[in-house]
Amino acid sequence: MVSLFSQRPRRTDVPRLKPRREPVAQVDRVDLAELTPELLPYLSQAAYVQLALFETLSHAVGVAPTAASKVAVSRVAALALAKHHGLAAEIKGLGHEPGPAMAPFAARIDEYARTTLGADWYEMLVTAYLTAGLLGDFQLQLATGLSADARTRIIPLLSGDDGHALLVDELRSAIDANPRLASRLALWGRRLVGDTLLIARSSLANVGHSRRDEARLEPAFTELIAAHTRRMDALGLTA
Amino acid sequence: MVSLFSQRPRRTDVPRLKPRREPVAQVDRVDLAELTPELLPYLSQAAYVQLALFETLSHAVGVAPTAASKVAVSRVAALALAKHHGLAAEIKGLGHEPGPAMAPFAARIDEYARTTLGADWYEMLVTAYLTAGLLGDFQLQLATGLSADARTRIIPLLSGDDGHALLVDELRSAIDANPRLASRLALWGRRLVGDTLLIARSSLANVGHSRRDEARLEPAFTELIAAHTRRMDALGLTA
Repeated sequence: MVSLFSQRPRRTDVPRLKPRREPVAQVDRVDLAELTPELLPYLSQAAYVQLALFETLSHAVGVAPTAASKVAVSRVAALALAKHHGLAAEIKGLGHEPGPAMAPFAARIDEYARTTLGADWYEMLVTAYLTAGLLGDFQLQLATGLSADARTRIIPLLSGDDGHALLVDELRSAIDANPRLASRLALWGRRLVGDTLLIARSSLANVGHSRRDEARLEPAFTELIAAHTRRMDALGLTA
Repeated sequence: MVSLFSQRPRRTDVPRLKPRREPVAQVDRVDLAELTPELLPYLSQAAYVQLALFETLSHAVGVAPTAASKVAVSRVAALALAKHHGLAAEIKGLGHEPGPAMAPFAARIDEYARTTLGADWYEMLVTAYLTAGLLGDFQLQLATGLSADARTRIIPLLSGDDGHALLVDELRSAIDANPRLASRLALWGRRLVGDTLLIARSSLANVGHSRRDEARLEPAFTELIAAHTRRMDALGLTA
């Protein structure tokens, strides 16, 4: 239900990390789903990311141009917060308090959220849409490697409505009304992807993956970027 | 279930607006409940107040000293937003869009929220607790004057969990750890009450009440202040 990989690129499209003469076996290519993340740090990072996303959306609510836009974006904020609270409940279910469990990851994610917040309403919405999309895909794909018990609770939670259709509506009508926005927001979208992939990569080490796993995950990251490009397309922006 | 007036002061405690020699009949004293507010502006103002409260709480989430505090306050923010969304759904039920319905009240409430936001985490929590309490009591009491149909939906919605116990916990432990906070926050709490009563009063005209009604409501406002004092007490602060 949540595979990022339903539209797999042909192998020839995939950046290769090993020289061609090595045998290209199935083991070369690892889906995020094939790794089993450690549950507590996985949940803690995912929960804190949703909280940071909620904060970005709250900032956007604060600078919304109209009451109607405020209402729309507040709904999206509520959905992010609901995911956060769902993940926090899972942390509690493991016998841990969400605050201390998330604390080791707070500074890095806060810094990421600060640098990717955006300078105005439009950039904030682009951030909320693109970074939540990319990190959400990433978390979902990792979740498929969890135990069956954890997976069946966490995947529906993460793949619940994200309200992104509301963000796309807001952004598309803003871009239609002011086409000069398009180039600025396209630039912003491209800038976001680098920082967002970095935070995703850095989180892998925290859930028990080695640098070697990371390198083998290149194709998975290629997929994440392809999905990002589709989101840029949905805004009418060039990735 | 929601009367503010369960602990009515003896009549002699109530400030009188008419000279003593006039007959003191029941009509002299008007509960907010005895006035019938116009439903759409009532809902629109109440909904926007919850949205503004959500924004105040979101600011607080953004400056929370620990991840655990962030989590606690984000729960309170979610509850404010849920009330907002419930009220917005009522507006839709009347055949209106919440955004345009709230728009006439946005500037005044935004300005109120801006001036009462508070300079730091502690002041923001005090604001969230005291202003939500006072305006919540006010809205609830007005709601009792709505039609039976509206009342039975809106009163449970407004009187649902506000998460204030979490705010009181956060504040009490902060004040215990740093007793010098108490005098600063007491001052802040006293300052808030003036601005908050002003915004409550100004909202009365918008729901169809005359200045004469307003004058007759003095005892009701006295009750609101008494409840405010109890909230200050709960923080260990002198009102």
